[in-house]
Amino acid sequence: MRVLFGGDYNPEQWPERVWKDDYRLFDAASINTVTLGVFTWALTQPREDAYDFTALDAAVTRAVAEGRTICLATGTGAHPPWMARAYPEVTRVDFEGRRHRYGQRHNSCPSSPAFRRFSAAVAGRIAARYASVVTAWHVGNEYGGACYCPLCAAAFRRWLRERYGGLDALNEAWYTRFWSHTFTDWDEIEPPNALTEHWRGPDHTAFQGITLDYLRFTSDAMLANFRDEKAAIRASSDAPVTTNLMGMYKPVDYHRWAPHLDFASWDNYPPDDTAHARMAFTHDLMRGIKGGAPFWLMEQTPSTTASRQVNPVKRPGVMRLWSWQAVAHGADAVLFFQLRASRGACEKYHGAVIGHAGRDDTRVFREVAALGAELRVLGGVTLGARTPARVALLFDWDSWWALEMTDGLNRHLRYTEIVLAYHRAVWACGTDLDAVAVTADLSGYDVVLAPALHVLADGVAERLAEVAARGGTVVVTFLSGLVDAHARAYLGDPPLTSLLGVRVDEWDSREPATVNPVTLPGGPDVAARLHFDLITPVTAAVEGVYGADFYAGTPAVTRNEYGGGEAWYVGTALEQAGVDRVVRRALDRHGLAGPYADVAGLEVATRVTADGVPLTFLLNHRDEPVEVVADRDATDLLTGAPVTGGATLRLAPKDVLILR
Amino acid sequence: MRVLFGGDYNPEQWPERVWKDDYRLFDAASINTVTLGVFTWALTQPREDAYDFTALDAAVTRAVAEGRTICLATGTGAHPPWMARAYPEVTRVDFEGRRHRYGQRHNSCPSSPAFRRFSAAVAGRIAARYASVVTAWHVGNEYGGACYCPLCAAAFRRWLRERYGGLDALNEAWYTRFWSHTFTDWDEIEPPNALTEHWRGPDHTAFQGITLDYLRFTSDAMLANFRDEKAAIRASSDAPVTTNLMGMYKPVDYHRWAPHLDFASWDNYPPDDTAHARMAFTHDLMRGIKGGAPFWLMEQTPSTTASRQVNPVKRPGVMRLWSWQAVAHGADAVLFFQLRASRGACEKYHGAVIGHAGRDDTRVFREVAALGAELRVLGGVTLGARTPARVALLFDWDSWWALEMTDGLNRHLRYTEIVLAYHRAVWACGTDLDAVAVTADLSGYDVVLAPALHVLADGVAERLAEVAARGGTVVVTFLSGLVDAHARAYLGDPPLTSLLGVRVDEWDSREPATVNPVTLPGGPDVAARLHFDLITPVTAAVEGVYGADFYAGTPAVTRNEYGGGEAWYVGTALEQAGVDRVVRRALDRHGLAGPYADVAGLEVATRVTADGVPLTFLLNHRDEPVEVVADRDATDLLTGAPVTGGATLRLAPKDVLILR
Amino acid sequence: MRVLFGGDYNPEQWPERVWKDDYRLFDAASINTVTLGVFTWALTQPREDAYDFTALDAAVTRAVAEGRTICLATGTGAHPPWMARAYPEVTRVDFEGRRHRYGQRHNSCPSSPAFRRFSAAVAGRIAARYASVVTAWHVGNEYGGACYCPLCAAAFRRWLRERYGGLDALNEAWYTRFWSHTFTDWDEIEPPNALTEHWRGPDHTAFQGITLDYLRFTSDAMLANFRDEKAAIRASSDAPVTTNLMGMYKPVDYHRWAPHLDFASWDNYPPDDTAHARMAFTHDLMRGIKGGAPFWLMEQTPSTTASRQVNPVKRPGVMRLWSWQAVAHGADAVLFFQLRASRGACEKYHGAVIGHAGRDDTRVFREVAALGAELRVLGGVTLGARTPARVALLFDWDSWWALEMTDGLNRHLRYTEIVLAYHRAVWACGTDLDAVAVTADLSGYDVVLAPALHVLADGVAERLAEVAARGGTVVVTFLSGLVDAHARAYLGDPPLTSLLGVRVDEWDSREPATVNPVTLPGGPDVAARLHFDLITPVTAAVEGVYGADFYAGTPAVTRNEYGGGEAWYVGTALEQAGVDRVVRRALDRHGLAGPYADVAGLEVATRVTADGVPLTFLLNHRDEPVEVVADRDATDLLTGAPVTGGATLRLAPKDVLILR
Repeated sequence: MRVLFGGDYNPEQWPERVWKDDYRLFDAASINTVTLGVFTWALTQPREDAYDFTALDAAVTRAVAEGRTICLATGTGAHPPWMARAYPEVTRVDFEGRRHRYGQRHNSCPSSPAFRRFSAAVAGRIAARYASVVTAWHVGNEYGGACYCPLCAAAFRRWLRERYGGLDALNEAWYTRFWSHTFTDWDEIEPPNALTEHWRGPDHTAFQGITLDYLRFTSDAMLANFRDEKAAIRASSDAPVTTNLMGMYKPVDYHRWAPHLDFASWDNYPPDDTAHARMAFTHDLMRGIKGGAPFWLMEQTPSTTASRQVNPVKRPGVMRLWSWQAVAHGADAVLFFQLRASRGACEKYHGAVIGHAGRDDTRVFREVAALGAELRVLGGVTLGARTPARVALLFDWDSWWALEMTDGLNRHLRYTEIVLAYHRAVWACGTDLDAVAVTADLSGYDVVLAPALHVLADGVAERLAEVAARGGTVVVTFLSGLVDAHARAYLGDPPLTSLLGVRVDEWDSREPATVNPVTLPGGPDVAARLHFDLITPVTAAVEGVYGADFYAGTPAVTRNEYGGGEAWYVGTALEQAGVDRVVRRALDRHGLAGPYADVAGLEVATRVTADGVPLTFLLNHRDEPVEVVADRDATDLLTGAPVTGGATLRLAPKDVLILR
Repeated sequence: MRVLFGGDYNPEQWPERVWKDDYRLFDAASINTVTLGVFTWALTQPREDAYDFTALDAAVTRAVAEGRTICLATGTGAHPPWMARAYPEVTRVDFEGRRHRYGQRHNSCPSSPAFRRFSAAVAGRIAARYASVVTAWHVGNEYGGACYCPLCAAAFRRWLRERYGGLDALNEAWYTRFWSHTFTDWDEIEPPNALTEHWRGPDHTAFQGITLDYLRFTSDAMLANFRDEKAAIRASSDAPVTTNLMGMYKPVDYHRWAPHLDFASWDNYPPDDTAHARMAFTHDLMRGIKGGAPFWLMEQTPSTTASRQVNPVKRPGVMRLWSWQAVAHGADAVLFFQLRASRGACEKYHGAVIGHAGRDDTRVFREVAALGAELRVLGGVTLGARTPARVALLFDWDSWWALEMTDGLNRHLRYTEIVLAYHRAVWACGTDLDAVAVTADLSGYDVVLAPALHVLADGVAERLAEVAARGGTVVVTFLSGLVDAHARAYLGDPPLTSLLGVRVDEWDSREPATVNPVTLPGGPDVAARLHFDLITPVTAAVEGVYGADFYAGTPAVTRNEYGGGEAWYVGTALEQAGVDRVVRRALDRHGLAGPYADVAGLEVATRVTADGVPLTFLLNHRDEPVEVVADRDATDLLTGAPVTGGATLRLAPKDVLILR
Repeated sequence: MRVLFGGDYNPEQWPERVWKDDYRLFDAASINTVTLGVFTWALTQPREDAYDFTALDAAVTRAVAEGRTICLATGTGAHPPWMARAYPEVTRVDFEGRRHRYGQRHNSCPSSPAFRRFSAAVAGRIAARYASVVTAWHVGNEYGGACYCPLCAAAFRRWLRERYGGLDALNEAWYTRFWSHTFTDWDEIEPPNALTEHWRGPDHTAFQGITLDYLRFTSDAMLANFRDEKAAIRASSDAPVTTNLMGMYKPVDYHRWAPHLDFASWDNYPPDDTAHARMAFTHDLMRGIKGGAPFWLMEQTPSTTASRQVNPVKRPGVMRLWSWQAVAHGADAVLFFQLRASRGACEKYHGAVIGHAGRDDTRVFREVAALGAELRVLGGVTLGARTPARVALLFDWDSWWALEMTDGLNRHLRYTEIVLAYHRAVWACGTDLDAVAVTADLSGYDVVLAPALHVLADGVAERLAEVAARGGTVVVTFLSGLVDAHARAYLGDPPLTSLLGVRVDEWDSREPATVNPVTLPGGPDVAARLHFDLITPVTAAVEGVYGADFYAGTPAVTRNEYGGGEAWYVGTALEQAGVDRVVRRALDRHGLAGPYADVAGLEVATRVTADGVPLTFLLNHRDEPVEVVADRDATDLLTGAPVTGGATLRLAPKDVLILR
């Protein structure tokens, strides 16, 4: 048993004579796992009434013969051409209201009976045929997007009936007395899009209520597709079923999916090569989907992506470092898209372990093979190990959606940027963190962060208060807790008022170029931007004040003692240094900062094995070497060398150290 | 009798128990006026064959009981959901040719028989029910947008038949021999949009003629909707009828509406907090709709808007200052949107006199209440007073439309920017100005400004010449007078040639970064940008010359003596300082500059009461105090204190002084 | 016989009384040619079953009477309104899938049977009527755009059947096993657009194969329209037939059209006034369409265009200089759009020889008349002369399309910018160049440039190798030769590997702001941007190396000796100075640099008359005078003055000299 290593492999795209070369190179790179069949539906079911497993049989048989672990896809991430022609309703209607015709992928209407019937049927057939050789099932692919067709409209109405019971409740929830929108018949309700409630795009809606519900409905509709196939698989196989999630992917609320995934897996394509902290957070979020259980890194590129405007290669050492980062945060599998490059179509220049030339003397292949060798050395020690976090961050798709679709806020605010700033402050301290849903059990955490938690669902205020009441520390920011699950403003003082000990009557918004300096204890003034709460303290102590504008001298940051604990309120978008100072205060109150909290660019993450042994990962993201002092005796797992407490640990640029 | 003070109030959106608080707070803020029912259609007519006045009865009864002046809306600014389902043609087809489905507001096809029938019917019912308690009627809401549906196409063809009689005249007017467009049947004519004559958007048309006519048709079609409802109201009520206009709103030519409005009212949402002069001009324009009669400020926000990318709050004192500015320019009502904040939907974060928390100890409420108290002190002295302007500026929707839709001009030119520069030069001098249509009587003005008057309708050249002939001064800019009402270039020397005394054979256009310095007498060179006429003087004197490019040394600004007067021609887009110098020459010729013409940021405006008493408003828009010397004995109307000629008048930042 | 001089003339747009003035002014400007009838279809065929030649008869009769050469258009560049109403399928469906209705021009579906029938019929009628007086036929106008309607879909499927025979070949060519796209029925294939395979726009496709084929199909469909009309003309007339091409116009592959044009003509509207080299190249490309035979400059503006955001006038002397540039590169006609300005519609402010005022004392008219006089002096000496180029540049629409539609490359790369940099290096040396298709005979060239030749069709590698093998020099850049005609990557080492002597395993892409300095012999380091090949030399010598990033010190530019010649490889986008140094090495190897190769801004071009006499054109594009030494005895053709070898030649700014 060791970390699964390999990735997406599509041998049906090239002649069988090449497969021999492929497996020779897989051996050379210690690749033990292949994901097969991700887009083979048109081959497997060449017409409505016929299945043909020739291609998949060949690929699976060869993988079995070569002794690889198989992750087998149901192949339903794109429907075959014949289906779109025979059932035009299987294609989607887009946000602009346009019925698409055949093309691309992720192109199926989730409410289409034809798609649901055919996808479940093919998944069932595949499961029946290959159950005996499959380690894990991969359903669909990167679920996402949305459909606005009449079938979805009808399904949405059914979904609403179940949720609201009657139109009175719906009208109340959506606040339809505004702008004369009172609905008197379910059939009057249209999907919210460019032809109905939206203008400019998905983030501008006349009614947040309907748009929030359509996002929830869409998440659920795709989840139903996943569940259709999973149920069909279960008829033949008990192997675990997953689908490849996409990290912080706005259109789908993965917390709604969590109960239905047997394990979490995700595709890591960071926006740039300085996204270390962002990736760390996303790993934490994906791990959080399944309550902290290990996940699979289902896809990453060995070198470049193909879909960006500009696609730089990963610098030497970066692929290795980021692979180890995944393991450090809970991955039990490190997989690539793609093992061999396609000859044609839009991903032909996406990075691959084996390029068009089929060579093993390339830089990319050499780095992959070296990582494979290291993972072999590591063996199974990390498998199943868990992260011992004492800090939780509440991540909430409802708040993400609401915050970015609501008029009257600053349109330059981005939910994930606010969240990432608070995560980064924790990450920089080498402190483990869980990113969890607002429904998660908070009783095990010392510190709970609630950045930009705009939507405050029922009970969350009480549960945050409990954290403080039992001595914990809560950190809340501007725009949190103002609206209910239907994005309706709370009347009177909002629910978090007593916990935070402040009142906010109004806020100011300014263009990105405007900076207001905030004075915080323990360092120079820090810049605040975009949003500025005008705060009236009620019971809270003032911790930071604005330095400019007509509200100069008024509070920007407060801290309220509550029960045995305390609650911070940060009323503006502080630059990172400001967030760092607030968060450090919260961590230090509980002694949670790590030994290398002040070493920039050195990530520290911990996993604890099933038998309670902590494994510490040190990851040097810098382009320079880093030296730190070992804080205890340990073993270097990659070299086997002993490490003595107090000795100097030296990490080369992009290097990694795993200490047990 | 005093200035009406209050605003939009939608009590149907919250429980009746809250209303008591609302009125208590209205009393505390001296609010005497409520606008009711602006979006209540779905409540008032819950289905095609039923009316239900429960909600409106309750709101009106309470307002009557509380002794408020009522401005009652017909509520037709958004149709109810059932109407869109039963009559899908009641929704609009947009510029892209897409039929919309139910959503948003301002969503009705103006040509739809169903909408016309239902809107008139509901207006009639409301008028019949509430005539006895209503001070003014508010029809629809912020008319605007456009529809491109088949019903509008048919209505457009009828409109064209009436205007042109036959196709020969239409072909001639639209110049259809170009690009093989000769129409041989009325039904061949399509609304000009993205699927027909346009590319890129509304400002790029193959034929200006058809696009101009469609804009006029659309203005008229919406006006017909207004007239439908007004006629229905007149069956029961003689109270004045208005609708809330939107200032410089491009899609609707308010001058076409003027005869049908009983009084003008408008919603003032300036683009930023430095728009003093722009607002002043817009007040002048709105006052000009009804020949200078007082208007209502129907909406302004007490604090923030919600619809912008970034929504700053009005700084302390700004709401008061801008309210007084409205009065200074002719407002007899100062109303807010909104008196209490909605809990949900896209305007929930729009500023409100009473916020979600329902408090009276907020900054915003305190400022509103203080203004209410001041207005009470003022009493009725300003009511009905008029502006004694000797300067007119010709504002022309046809020119706005033509200038910005015509290929071959500089696409960076904006009609309103050119107009505002000429207004600002007058405004800065403390000189009153009327913004009037090209059809207005010009006989009462000493100075007439015609900036960017691209379209020269029949007779306007003659009437401008008369102004000069009788000793007045005319100021004309580049791109004026080149085309007729169908946007066809005049052949031969264009009509303004003899008045201006210049010939323009060609012009140069350059990117915004290119500056040509222009030498004008009386100061340093000023920058010119974007458009550069190459001028050949015929009888005119050269007043300014270009300093660069191959036309260096040739005229940029000229002045032509004509009759007893003179006509300036400014052939390029001068920076403000250049416009100021030209306009000051024109004003000084008639002694029209005010006493504080050189005090930056101090606005001076005058209203003359019915009995001939001038009231002078001094408005300090600066963030610093201003001191000036009183030019005569007077009374400070807000304090009642006497002012002696020669004494120092001190205005705090954002302060206002009203002298009688 | 002399150079044809004149242009588009649309007298049907204004009263006949004006025509007399027009011809008087034509005489004054030595205008001998008029292009008539370009948009007269609606007049010529006012309804389906009727022709009316009144207007065209009048225009043609007058031109004949006035003794002008007539280029007669078929007028089918825009269909009449009645046709769109009677045959709605004659209008196009756009990339967004929207059926357009009547409007604009270039608006006909090329696959519409109605359009094909009517256009051929009207062309035939016109040819029959006017054959005796016409010198050349002008079919349609500026063919371009695309249609995505069901008729085009059906025609595309027919086109594919002819090309591929069966679906297996098509699936293989398009690589449809990717993303489950295997087609099992021809009718499943949809035109690639925003509703099928594309996202963001025309440059983002899931499958390059289908998009490439649709571009080829569209080129061929429009060519079929041209051929329809040409065949109809041939029934009555043997006069040469052309259409006005548009230079580097991406949507249409003019090389596919070449066999069907009797001569090339094109419309020269450069993007700005510093486009000298670009225009020179475009002339070379248009001349290359017909194997180097002289072409017509069918349109240029005498002063301004109207369609840009900003439309500067041509500075004094520029129109003359650019007209001579056309002649220098092979034009036997210099024509304007337009001789008289339209009064209305979107081109009314496009420059015209005669403006709205009808004057002859304008700057523009004077410059046109002066050029007319010069052309008269020149007489027929240049007619039929050809360009003696020893350098060829391969210009390839397939590569243009593929390079800019493929994911995984740097989206900031522009095919024409890369091509133009290599042309400019040749042009700056005063070296004549032919821009030719990849199918052209290369045996006559010493140097062949293949910049960004992404698509390497069958046989091209061999033919480039032959150039080097016989002693020539080949220059190839990054991203060349990687894919076949279906945009499928070559497997194994790509075909140019042995010629170039290098291997490229991967490349790096960076944002435009990132610069990597490249060290080249013979000068300071040059900047490289956007794309950086990581090159492994096999047999090639290293000529330039990167100075930065992890590949610092590795090759950026190589040179490989091959047979008697050599092949350069440039693996990155060098700034112009770098390209210049590489190209100069190639030219100098064959002694091809001209005598004034180091004089910036002085263009030198040669034409050789039928009797072998070289004519040298010197064109001074600078704003300063230029002095050079005559390299031989000659005659100045415009003045008749003798020039002695060794004497100083002085050219004023924008001046031209023609030496025989």
